[in-house]
Amino acid sequence: MEAAADQATTGGARRERGGRNARREQRAHAGQGPGRPYIIRNIPTYDILSEENLTRIETTADRILAEIGIEFRDDPAALDHWRRAGARVDGVRVTFEPGLLREVLKTAPSTFTQHARNPDKTVLIGGDAVVFAPSYGSPFVMDLDQGRRYGTIEDFRNFIKLGQASPWLHHSGGTICEPVDLPVNKRHLEMVYSHIRYSDRPFMGSVTAEERAEDSIEMCRMLFGAPFVEENCVILGNLNVNSPLVWDGTMTRVLRAYARANQGTVIVPFILGGAMGPVTNAGAIAQSLAETMAGCALAQLERPGAPVIFGNFLSSMSLRSGSPTFGTPEPAIGSMVIGQLARRLGLPLRCSGNFTTSKLPDAQAMTEATMSMLAAIHCGANFILHSAGFLDGLLSMSYEKFVMDTDLCGALHSYLGGVVVDDNQLALDAFREVGPGSHFFGCQHTMANYQTAFWDSETADNDPFEKWEAAGADDAAGRANKLWKKRLAEFEAPPLDAGVDAALRDFIARKDAAMEDAWY
Amino acid sequence: MEAAADQATTGGARRERGGRNARREQRAHAGQGPGRPYIIRNIPTYDILSEENLTRIETTADRILAEIGIEFRDDPAALDHWRRAGARVDGVRVTFEPGLLREVLKTAPSTFTQHARNPDKTVLIGGDAVVFAPSYGSPFVMDLDQGRRYGTIEDFRNFIKLGQASPWLHHSGGTICEPVDLPVNKRHLEMVYSHIRYSDRPFMGSVTAEERAEDSIEMCRMLFGAPFVEENCVILGNLNVNSPLVWDGTMTRVLRAYARANQGTVIVPFILGGAMGPVTNAGAIAQSLAETMAGCALAQLERPGAPVIFGNFLSSMSLRSGSPTFGTPEPAIGSMVIGQLARRLGLPLRCSGNFTTSKLPDAQAMTEATMSMLAAIHCGANFILHSAGFLDGLLSMSYEKFVMDTDLCGALHSYLGGVVVDDNQLALDAFREVGPGSHFFGCQHTMANYQTAFWDSETADNDPFEKWEAAGADDAAGRANKLWKKRLAEFEAPPLDAGVDAALRDFIARKDAAMEDAWY
Repeated sequence: MEAAADQATTGGARRERGGRNARREQRAHAGQGPGRPYIIRNIPTYDILSEENLTRIETTADRILAEIGIEFRDDPAALDHWRRAGARVDGVRVTFEPGLLREVLKTAPSTFTQHARNPDKTVLIGGDAVVFAPSYGSPFVMDLDQGRRYGTIEDFRNFIKLGQASPWLHHSGGTICEPVDLPVNKRHLEMVYSHIRYSDRPFMGSVTAEERAEDSIEMCRMLFGAPFVEENCVILGNLNVNSPLVWDGTMTRVLRAYARANQGTVIVPFILGGAMGPVTNAGAIAQSLAETMAGCALAQLERPGAPVIFGNFLSSMSLRSGSPTFGTPEPAIGSMVIGQLARRLGLPLRCSGNFTTSKLPDAQAMTEATMSMLAAIHCGANFILHSAGFLDGLLSMSYEKFVMDTDLCGALHSYLGGVVVDDNQLALDAFREVGPGSHFFGCQHTMANYQTAFWDSETADNDPFEKWEAAGADDAAGRANKLWKKRLAEFEAPPLDAGVDAALRDFIARKDAAMEDAWY
Repeated sequence: MEAAADQATTGGARRERGGRNARREQRAHAGQGPGRPYIIRNIPTYDILSEENLTRIETTADRILAEIGIEFRDDPAALDHWRRAGARVDGVRVTFEPGLLREVLKTAPSTFTQHARNPDKTVLIGGDAVVFAPSYGSPFVMDLDQGRRYGTIEDFRNFIKLGQASPWLHHSGGTICEPVDLPVNKRHLEMVYSHIRYSDRPFMGSVTAEERAEDSIEMCRMLFGAPFVEENCVILGNLNVNSPLVWDGTMTRVLRAYARANQGTVIVPFILGGAMGPVTNAGAIAQSLAETMAGCALAQLERPGAPVIFGNFLSSMSLRSGSPTFGTPEPAIGSMVIGQLARRLGLPLRCSGNFTTSKLPDAQAMTEATMSMLAAIHCGANFILHSAGFLDGLLSMSYEKFVMDTDLCGALHSYLGGVVVDDNQLALDAFREVGPGSHFFGCQHTMANYQTAFWDSETADNDPFEKWEAAGADDAAGRANKLWKKRLAEFEAPPLDAGVDAALRDFIARKDAAMEDAWY
């Protein structure tokens, strides 16, 4: 345990933007190949609104907070925090003078490091860093062979393994699917253990009850050593607002548990426009801002300096059927505004991911996923949950789509590399060598650059029609089906210290013995 | 004929950027619904390179033009133009002092109007306008029922009808597929006639020989009246550079024919990095700039003020197999730079489209298409050829993908609408009405806005899993298959003046009688 702690790298949650640590980490990882633990973007964010319009949205959020307020239910300690901070508390309704939350948020770090048990997989969150994590929270899993069924702990482990096997994800995620074959009150133990056992990347802990969050953090203490955890972020909790304008006590107690332990929280309003928020984009964005600011500020009141991520989960609805829709243009373009607002607050940002409502890993799935994912890329998201596997409006984790999505994540590594302008890239000598009417296949410049020039997809078929047809005329889903089976068959778990492993198993056995199974 | 000419709207090819005509047209069409004839973008372009790096690329293009030059083969009149303009002509090789082409390009309009036979379908090209046109040039067609086969004039007409039936395209395109059942030397007559007969939108003419371009323009004179055509752009020709750095005589003769008649040309280098250009993005972009500037300038020398579109067709290769790849990240991000360069030149821009190498309308097809198409949207493309149907690296026009792509074009109408910030969109009253913990389904603000709030896809399935399964568990390609058949079955051609129709048929009959069929 101490050995793991000693190997870990730079410091914890401090306001680091532009600081020496952040710059050092960026230099260390910029431009690395597939082995780099995260991306440093080399393209600017895509800012679509004027300062004036951003201010109008912020003013609307301030008025929502001051005139309507947010309910904090079943958590008296949260209300005490707000009273002490100078907010007005009336029953469970809290209203905030404009500027109050922004003042509280000044202690929140603009970038922070989340440590992995393998220090080479430690990630930077915030600034120009981009971290891809798999999808989160589906009750079902599906593949082309067996169709849709409830997820199990075996599926859960399979997805951790598929994630770990992909060089294009940076984070092991959290509740990748619900393992419904395990009791509700003990699931978190096996989930956290599985992340530790089958991945050496950073991961997320339980958020379904305060004691489960505490268990998740305790298991990290066994892995990293308690003193290291006290000073460094090693686990994240993903907290949903009960939009509109309600924070439930379960969520705020968990939020405070992570913050109290100096661990990271992702604050995520869940707004389907027309249901949990207004049907218009600007209003839903203002609401999202208000709800996120309140959650991030509560973490700061629990422990100033605790790492927080400015999250959102905006989507639209089919106003014909009332069904939620994902990967549609309005939330995609709305993400750009969310990104601008997060940067004005100076907080790390979480946005969208490979969203879709399709029930199959088909053309609809990847149209929607690509639009949604590119929005996260363009808006400047730092932590992109739901980067792989999302199907059927988050009801299913798809084995095939997981493979397609990680391939898209790979393409986005090249995309985020931007267009480099230097003498080698400008290639004037190559034009001199080749001249008009010839070709560049074998020229010196091509030979020197071809291995790194272009993204090389593992799932796309670029062969001539005849060759593709002779090979079986498979579609992308069929190829992905073969790939995930191959990767699982070839998987080797990263080595884990036997003492840590035994301590974790012992902890789980004691917890298991101490509690009756609960199934709901 | 004169009636059609009288109905046509504003003036032809003049330097209009920021001018009264452009602004008037923009106001007239901004924010219109599905019936608008083109889009006015309400989001900024996505500019990724600094002025300094753009200048380095421009300087490299200037050096390519000055030190290596471009060959203009089999067209002495083109060489005469260059000599008179002050370029150095050595055999067929032409070199250009830095600044020469930019000086010639000063007469090119930054925006122009392409007239449709139905004045309500007339489009603006350049500035903030965005025009979607179907894919162009495939020898094969395919659908899920019959698979891949050579295209026929019936397929060609079918695609015109499917385009005309979609509210999300703005232009009828050109050689949507090759009608290989017609003689090579007569195809263009039936193609131009079919655009006129089955669409009332603007379209493109033949580029395979000078006399076929002349025929295309002559048929427009019969439709719009010769005096109108002399003053206004009513047809476009799409001209490919024989990259690297060669303009073939067939292309420059056709280019000059369109320009001479005051008609529009789209100047398109075709560069697969590593084959027809360097394997590095910055160099391929510099080459594309050099080749496009030369083509656009030649049009200006033939007739100063002739409308030109700054085109490009950048893509990558699989360096494992040598196969071309489309919809990959490098050309997508490279498009952003192309957009910045076109704006610095002040020319309308054509970029990418729904590119893919997939052989099926599957997940690969739409991953690649969406990445490519969004690049065209973000980079500020004004005329987006290949917006619908592109499959198998442009070898096939797909009936199903045509439907999927036009649906994506519809989504992009909403995307380009951006985030509007006004009191209604900010929805403060809705928050007052609903308050914390309730929902927005039936509130006054939702009822007033829901019909226009969200893009309503015709091909996406947003139903719950059980409902989707009970309805047959179709994938997106299956739904698209049903949709194209329904649209063809319901198609009604827009009315065409019987006199014009008879004149066109008579022209074709006379041409047909005067030529032997040629099949290659």
